[in-house]
Amino acid sequence: MRFSVYTPPQAEDGPVPVLYYLAGLTCTEETFQIKAGAQRYAAEHGVMLISPDTSPRDANIPGEEDDYDFGAGAGFYLDATREPYSSSYKMYTYVTVELPELVEETFSGKADTDRQSIFGHSMGGHGALVIALRNPESYLSVSAFAPAAASMQSPWGEKAFTGYLGEDTQKWRAYDASELVRESPFADGREILIDQGTQDQFLEEQLKPHIFEEACKEANQKLTLRRQEGYDHSYYFISTFMEDHILHHAKALGA
Amino acid sequence: MRFSVYTPPQAEDGPVPVLYYLAGLTCTEETFQIKAGAQRYAAEHGVMLISPDTSPRDANIPGEEDDYDFGAGAGFYLDATREPYSSSYKMYTYVTVELPELVEETFSGKADTDRQSIFGHSMGGHGALVIALRNPESYLSVSAFAPAAASMQSPWGEKAFTGYLGEDTQKWRAYDASELVRESPFADGREILIDQGTQDQFLEEQLKPHIFEEACKEANQKLTLRRQEGYDHSYYFISTFMEDHILHHAKALGA
Repeated sequence: MRFSVYTPPQAEDGPVPVLYYLAGLTCTEETFQIKAGAQRYAAEHGVMLISPDTSPRDANIPGEEDDYDFGAGAGFYLDATREPYSSSYKMYTYVTVELPELVEETFSGKADTDRQSIFGHSMGGHGALVIALRNPESYLSVSAFAPAAASMQSPWGEKAFTGYLGEDTQKWRAYDASELVRESPFADGREILIDQGTQDQFLEEQLKPHIFEEACKEANQKLTLRRQEGYDHSYYFISTFMEDHILHHAKALGA
Repeated sequence: MRFSVYTPPQAEDGPVPVLYYLAGLTCTEETFQIKAGAQRYAAEHGVMLISPDTSPRDANIPGEEDDYDFGAGAGFYLDATREPYSSSYKMYTYVTVELPELVEETFSGKADTDRQSIFGHSMGGHGALVIALRNPESYLSVSAFAPAAASMQSPWGEKAFTGYLGEDTQKWRAYDASELVRESPFADGREILIDQGTQDQFLEEQLKPHIFEEACKEANQKLTLRRQEGYDHSYYFISTFMEDHILHHAKALGA
């Protein structure tokens, strides 16, 4: 597994907090660092940026490269339980356990892994929301750009959950941000930040932030959902609002 | 021919100056807009950003796709005189004449094409320097990241000039920034800005800014050549110093 890192200058003087970014379908560990323009804000606030890949690669599973929305590049940040993916597609455990341990080892003295937060885009927005909601002690804040906010009710999610988890939809709920927030909102009153472009081609069919919005309302979860007029699903959209997201996390991280 | 454009919000209120960016070998018209993080500075200063492709595409010339440093993706911003490239590889005329006309037509009322400047990276830094030095009235300022600053004396330039222009090295001089600046520095005292990473893998063999530096000295051309410690040839290097370059041009453009 590969990941990318940006280390801010402040890490020369002691450990800095860590912000994980989860990318969307077809992306790699490089996409965020190349396209999002986040480094200058991370440099201002003294935050380390870590971006993992979106799936295992070369797992030797027949057909793993065939679809853009399943298999390689489409790990959905879950632990697959269905063969043959169950042997290697364990992105949930990778992101929440293995990667932080690796960061701690690799950047000892530079990364303060007791202070970490998470955000992401599209499938990665889904991943960030799911991971933060299930691990509120491990991640101090969460935000997302155009997240797949109700994955069980989207074609991407249905395909991924069926293929990785099987037909039993009860098992899907542990990876659906809207289901999770309805049952277990953050107990400490923290706010979730989401930006969503109104001209996003995936908005209606795949992303469905209104379902997440409704679930937050029911659960009394604070949510800032900003519908950004005219923006699409691209990294131009992401880079435009990156500063606000880094600031959201920097505050929570005490950076 | 394709090109990319970023239009700043100020263009809603009237014409804004235009800054052209020429990319390097293997790049397309998208590379700059995706990787350089220039839009936020262009938005601050009210500058339109235009990035052309690096060559014609699909010109149906045998072998045009074979090499990374010749043919498609490697137009060198010159007008080829040698067959078969002479029929379509006319990047010098495209950038200096056709593209500004197209911008004027396409962005009428938004682009002020009487105020334009140019910059670029590597092969595109070569192109920007050559084009500005040969057209000082048309471009109010010039800068470059890691330019091929003495192309006649580099393997890239030798290969390109031989293939596009023929064996007569006298004809190469019109496309060599160091030769041009030695003979015709800017008469109005304007300064050239260049950033060069000290860990750039192409520095010694291909880029040779010291030759350009020496030529500027001989010609009394003002040059700010900043050797940036530890930086390589990548867009991470470019994005790090982008703000300074946009500011350099914004001042000259009255933006």
